[in-house]
Amino acid sequence: LKEFATIITPRLYETDAMGHINNATIAAWFEVARVRFIESLTERGPGIAKDWILASVQIDFVGETFYGVDVIAKITEATIGNSSLTLRCEMLQAGRLTVRGTAVLVHIEPQSKAPTRIPDTLRDKVAAL
Amino acid sequence: LKEFATIITPRLYETDAMGHINNATIAAWFEVARVRFIESLTERGPGIAKDWILASVQIDFVGETFYGVDVIAKITEATIGNSSLTLRCEMLQAGRLTVRGTAVLVHIEPQSKAPTRIPDTLRDKVAAL
Amino acid sequence: LKEFATIITPRLYETDAMGHINNATIAAWFEVARVRFIESLTERGPGIAKDWILASVQIDFVGETFYGVDVIAKITEATIGNSSLTLRCEMLQAGRLTVRGTAVLVHIEPQSKAPTRIPDTLRDKVAAL
Amino acid sequence: LKEFATIITPRLYETDAMGHINNATIAAWFEVARVRFIESLTERGPGIAKDWILASVQIDFVGETFYGVDVIAKITEATIGNSSLTLRCEMLQAGRLTVRGTAVLVHIEPQSKAPTRIPDTLRDKVAAL
Repeated sequence: LKEFATIITPRLYETDAMGHINNATIAAWFEVARVRFIESLTERGPGIAKDWILASVQIDFVGETFYGVDVIAKITEATIGNSSLTLRCEMLQAGRLTVRGTAVLVHIEPQSKAPTRIPDTLRDKVAAL
Repeated sequence: LKEFATIITPRLYETDAMGHINNATIAAWFEVARVRFIESLTERGPGIAKDWILASVQIDFVGETFYGVDVIAKITEATIGNSSLTLRCEMLQAGRLTVRGTAVLVHIEPQSKAPTRIPDTLRDKVAAL
Repeated sequence: LKEFATIITPRLYETDAMGHINNATIAAWFEVARVRFIESLTERGPGIAKDWILASVQIDFVGETFYGVDVIAKITEATIGNSSLTLRCEMLQAGRLTVRGTAVLVHIEPQSKAPTRIPDTLRDKVAAL
Repeated sequence: LKEFATIITPRLYETDAMGHINNATIAAWFEVARVRFIESLTERGPGIAKDWILASVQIDFVGETFYGVDVIAKITEATIGNSSLTLRCEMLQAGRLTVRGTAVLVHIEPQSKAPTRIPDTLRDKVAAL
């Protein structure tokens, strides 16, 4: 997989009283990286993708993230199941690994919210990466 | 106006690196107080009110707000125009005034988003307060 | 373990354009439940605990969480290692399980941020639960 | 004043159930624009500026802001008093004015938090803009 990267500039309000970026902000940034990755696979471009739902997320806080230095959030691995898409993510700050995450997304039919097979066009694009 | 109060327990992630509650969190709490006030006026109870939109907000940060002590957010004044509702709010922490805010909401027709006259039932309820 | 519960009233700004509570908000609520649990174990009461750091978090989004109905966030299990504390959490909305989470916290020496053994007083309190 | 602009890419979790960007997120973005502006005036670059505090903020929501299109947040005016700095901001999305804001910041002595005169070096820089 050719790495897919999003650059995130930490914001003052994303810090907490511990003086670092709060863990819930990291979970939010992971969403930013995931959403950009998925939007890059579709023709329609940025827009609210109502055909994906988050089933689970796992985050290791390998090191603290601080204000003042950009963070690179990389999607390092994408694994496609029948209706599920597992994305692995790494965040680096000043070359230092700070976060490692895994998210499982499920492709759904927007009305019924029932899981549906991921379309072949998306499969081909992920395979080509 | 009989004061309408919401109690808010500050959360760790709502602090920032200055060691106090971030200003954008205060703006978010003001929404909590406004929404509860409006929901208290309607029969339908909690639900996403798509017939109100925020036109403007003004907040004076009279004193810092800290983690560890509950905040009381009071709607102290409600003024009804044709389609607008102006709400004044005060926040207190440990008896100390920390925030004074004013918000102007506009009653809209959800589809067209055009301003519409506030219904008389709501006017009567606000007048009765 | 006698269940430890925090009641959370969903806020309008915690929803997203999918019409439900955003996943990053759930991560933030999990922090609320964890922090209350830890604060309940110490004599000092609410305050910013600089002697704990989050090592990892895992969240299963079992069902969607919506605006308008309170959520009960329960700490259902607490396991103490030498310097680590593993907390399991469940969130329920209207009796329906919506979230299952696990967090690993590490007890640190605030200055050096080096892991340190969890004090016996805390161990005894967790054992007594 | 030569316009000072920050580009903000709206994030999915910054939307709310109304389908647009939540008002508290706009307040947070205004902080992003203010902080970048202040950091651009100082030699030290990005870092947590403990010598400024927000006294008040006023925001007009001229139009809705949506997901999917970048927002330009401009500081259009900076007025320096003895210890206060008033910043005016405009946000545009796809060329459309969506937000107009005014913030009053106060320069403080970080320990005592007492207002102190804004240093001449900063005054000269703002005058030169």
